[in-house]
Amino acid sequence: MSFFLDVILVDDARKVITGIAPAMPTENVPLAHSQNRILAEDTVPATDIPGFSRSVVDGYALLSSDTVGASESMPAMLTSRGRIQMGEEPDTAIQAGECIYVPTGGMLPEGADAVAMIEYCEVVGDEILVQRALAPGENWISRGEDFSTGDVLIPQGTKLSSRHCGVLAANGVADVTVSRQPIVGIISTGNELITIDKKPVAAQVRDANTYLCAGFVTDQGGIPRPYGIVRDDRDALHDALKTAVAECDIVLVSGGSSKDDRDMCADTVAGMGEVLVHGVAIAPGKPTIIGRAGKVPIIGLPGHPASAYVVLIALVADLLHRATGERAEQRTRTVVLAENVPSARGREDYIRMALEPDGARPLFGKSGLLNTLIRSQGLLRVPAEREGYETGDDVEVIVW
Amino acid sequence: MSFFLDVILVDDARKVITGIAPAMPTENVPLAHSQNRILAEDTVPATDIPGFSRSVVDGYALLSSDTVGASESMPAMLTSRGRIQMGEEPDTAIQAGECIYVPTGGMLPEGADAVAMIEYCEVVGDEILVQRALAPGENWISRGEDFSTGDVLIPQGTKLSSRHCGVLAANGVADVTVSRQPIVGIISTGNELITIDKKPVAAQVRDANTYLCAGFVTDQGGIPRPYGIVRDDRDALHDALKTAVAECDIVLVSGGSSKDDRDMCADTVAGMGEVLVHGVAIAPGKPTIIGRAGKVPIIGLPGHPASAYVVLIALVADLLHRATGERAEQRTRTVVLAENVPSARGREDYIRMALEPDGARPLFGKSGLLNTLIRSQGLLRVPAEREGYETGDDVEVIVW
Repeated sequence: MSFFLDVILVDDARKVITGIAPAMPTENVPLAHSQNRILAEDTVPATDIPGFSRSVVDGYALLSSDTVGASESMPAMLTSRGRIQMGEEPDTAIQAGECIYVPTGGMLPEGADAVAMIEYCEVVGDEILVQRALAPGENWISRGEDFSTGDVLIPQGTKLSSRHCGVLAANGVADVTVSRQPIVGIISTGNELITIDKKPVAAQVRDANTYLCAGFVTDQGGIPRPYGIVRDDRDALHDALKTAVAECDIVLVSGGSSKDDRDMCADTVAGMGEVLVHGVAIAPGKPTIIGRAGKVPIIGLPGHPASAYVVLIALVADLLHRATGERAEQRTRTVVLAENVPSARGREDYIRMALEPDGARPLFGKSGLLNTLIRSQGLLRVPAEREGYETGDDVEVIVW
Repeated sequence: MSFFLDVILVDDARKVITGIAPAMPTENVPLAHSQNRILAEDTVPATDIPGFSRSVVDGYALLSSDTVGASESMPAMLTSRGRIQMGEEPDTAIQAGECIYVPTGGMLPEGADAVAMIEYCEVVGDEILVQRALAPGENWISRGEDFSTGDVLIPQGTKLSSRHCGVLAANGVADVTVSRQPIVGIISTGNELITIDKKPVAAQVRDANTYLCAGFVTDQGGIPRPYGIVRDDRDALHDALKTAVAECDIVLVSGGSSKDDRDMCADTVAGMGEVLVHGVAIAPGKPTIIGRAGKVPIIGLPGHPASAYVVLIALVADLLHRATGERAEQRTRTVVLAENVPSARGREDYIRMALEPDGARPLFGKSGLLNTLIRSQGLLRVPAEREGYETGDDVEVIVW
C-alpha cells in the first residue's frame, strides 16, 4: 500500500458524506421540549393571529373622522362609553362622537377605526378630550395581520429557538413534529490512550476526543453515545464498531494517527461494509475516512483533537444536518486579516484564527497543539484554488 | 398616579439589575455534563501537556545535523534502529548516523532533535535514505509546549464549549467546578390569557410568554420553572409570586400590558419587598419593572412577547450572566444599513432587523406583531443620545 492517500477535494467528500446520511424519522414532542430541535414539516397557523382586532396601546377607541384637526389647544370632545375588559368581547359598538377605553391587547369595538393613546387624552367628567388627530388604522392591528392561515409560519428544517417556541405557543402548537435526534456512537482508538481519570505514564495521553466529539454532537442536535477507548487491534476495533453500528445512526471513530493504524481502521470498515473515501485534501484532516456498514455511516477522524475538530466542522456537521433535515448556515463573520495566510494550492486549508481588535490572526505554529482550540475564535477556510490571503484582505471566518 | 412612568436610562437600569443578581454557589459536575455550564474558577493544568516530547508526523527520529545538505539527489543515509510503539517509552537513544521510526503522537527518543516525514524517506534494507535537510525541533513538540502547569488553562466565567471540554479532558479534569444554574420562575399574567392547548374565544390569546421566557432562560444557562397563567388579580398574583420567590433564584412576571395591570404588578412587588425601577427608557419595553423580595429579583416584563423579548435580551441576560459569573459578550455583527433608522433622542431603541444580502433593514410596522420575532435576525440598539442611523451607515447588530 502506498504512503500516499488517494485524496479527494473537500467539496467531493461533502457530496459523499451527505449522500450517505441516514434520514431521521419524525417524532412529536411537547412544545416545552422542542427548543433546539429541527422542525420536520412546515408549520401553518390553524387560526389567524391575532384572532380579533386588537389595540396596541392603552387608550380610547374612536372614529378617526371625529379627530380631524384635533390638537392640544383645540381637542376633539367625545362621549365616553365606559371600558372594554381584557379578554372580553365588547358588548357595544361605537358611533360618531363616542369613544370607549380599551387597554393594550383589548378588542376593538365595532365602529372604531383608531385608538387615541391615553397620554394624549384628558378626562373631563364623562367627556374625553382628544388632543391629536388620528389616521384610520392607527394603534391597532387587525385580525390575521400578524399571522394568517395561508402563511407558512415556520418552515421545515428550522432549528427551533426560544423565539420560535414563543410563536408556536401563540399559534397553539402544543405538540411539535421534529426529526428524531441521531444517536452518534463515539469510539477513540489508540494504544497510547488512557481514560481522563488516570495519570499518564511514559508516552500515554488522555482521551480528549470522546469529550470533544460528544460535545460537538450535542451542539449539532445529536445524542452522543461514547464507547470508550479501543486499542489498535483489528479484532477489538471490529467488535467495538459492530456494537456501535447496531446501536447508533452514525459512528465516529477517532485515532489511527499513524499510517499503519489508519490503514487498519480503513481495512476494518471495509470488512464490515465499504470505504468510500480515504483521504481528503484538507489540512488538517487529510487521513479522514468516510465509509459505511449497512446504512450506518462510519467516519474516521484524525487522532489529534485539534485536527479532528476541523473535520467535524468541515464535514461531519453537514452529515448531521442532512440526517435531521436542518437548513443550517455556517455562522461566519467578515473580518480583515492582520497577517498573511499562505496556503498550498490544491488543498483546502482550515486555519484556526484569533479574532483581535486590529484584525484576524492565523494561529499557525506546529500542528498537534490543542491550545489552538481554545485560543482561536474560528476557522478560516482557504479554498483549494487559492494560494492564501494577504494582510488587509476581507475574509469570512467560520465562528465557533 | 401619573400616566407617565418615572423612566430611567437603560445603562442605569442595567446597573440596578446586575446589582441585585444573586451569586450562584458552585457545584462539581462530571466533565460529560459540563458543556454550556459556566466555569466557576480558573482551571490550571495539573501536568504539562504533552507530558513528553512527541512526534507530530509519521517518520524517522534523527539528529538534524546528520541531514545537512540532504536532497532527493543526495540523500542522507542513516541506520534504522527499529520502531517506537505508540504509548511506550523508547528503550533506546539515537546516536549520530542512526534513526528510529516513530508514529504520529509517539515519544521522541533521547538524542533525536528532528523527525523526517516518511514521505521524504526511502527504505533500503536496514538503511533509511532521508531526502530533505531538517532543522532542530522540526516535526515534534516538546513537553509542556501545549499547556504548562504555570498557565491558566481556561479562565473563570467561561461558558464551556465542546472545545473546552476536549481540552479539560486532555488535562485530566474529570470533575468540573461550575456555577449552579439559577432557577428562574416564570409567571404570565393577564385575564385574556389561555393555555396553548385551548382555542381562543372572544378576545382571548394564548400564553406565548411562558414558552418564550423558558426558552430564553435555557439559552442563558438557567433552569426555567413555569408557574402558568395568573389572572389580573392582586391576591392571585401575590400568592403566585410568594410561591415562586420561595422556590426560585429569580422570578420573571410578564403581562400587565395595560397601565392598570402594570401598576397592580408594581404594587404587589412593592408589598413583598421593593420596586427599584418602574419604567426604562427603552422601546419597546418602557413599562419594565425591576424589584425584589428578600434576595430574589422580580422582573416585570411587557405583556407582548415581542416587547418582552427585547427586555430579556437588553437587561435580563445581564442579570443571569451576573448570577452565574459568565463573562459573556453579546454576539454582534457589523452590517451596512439598507434603510434609514429614525429614533427619538433620550430613549434607547431596540429595532428588530432583517439581515438581507444588500444590507440590514429595520422591521418597523406596528408594535404588537409577533412575526417580527421570527422574521428578524437580530436587534439594532440605537443609543439614547442618537437620533437614529442613515442608509449606508455601518452598525453593530446583536445577532439572535
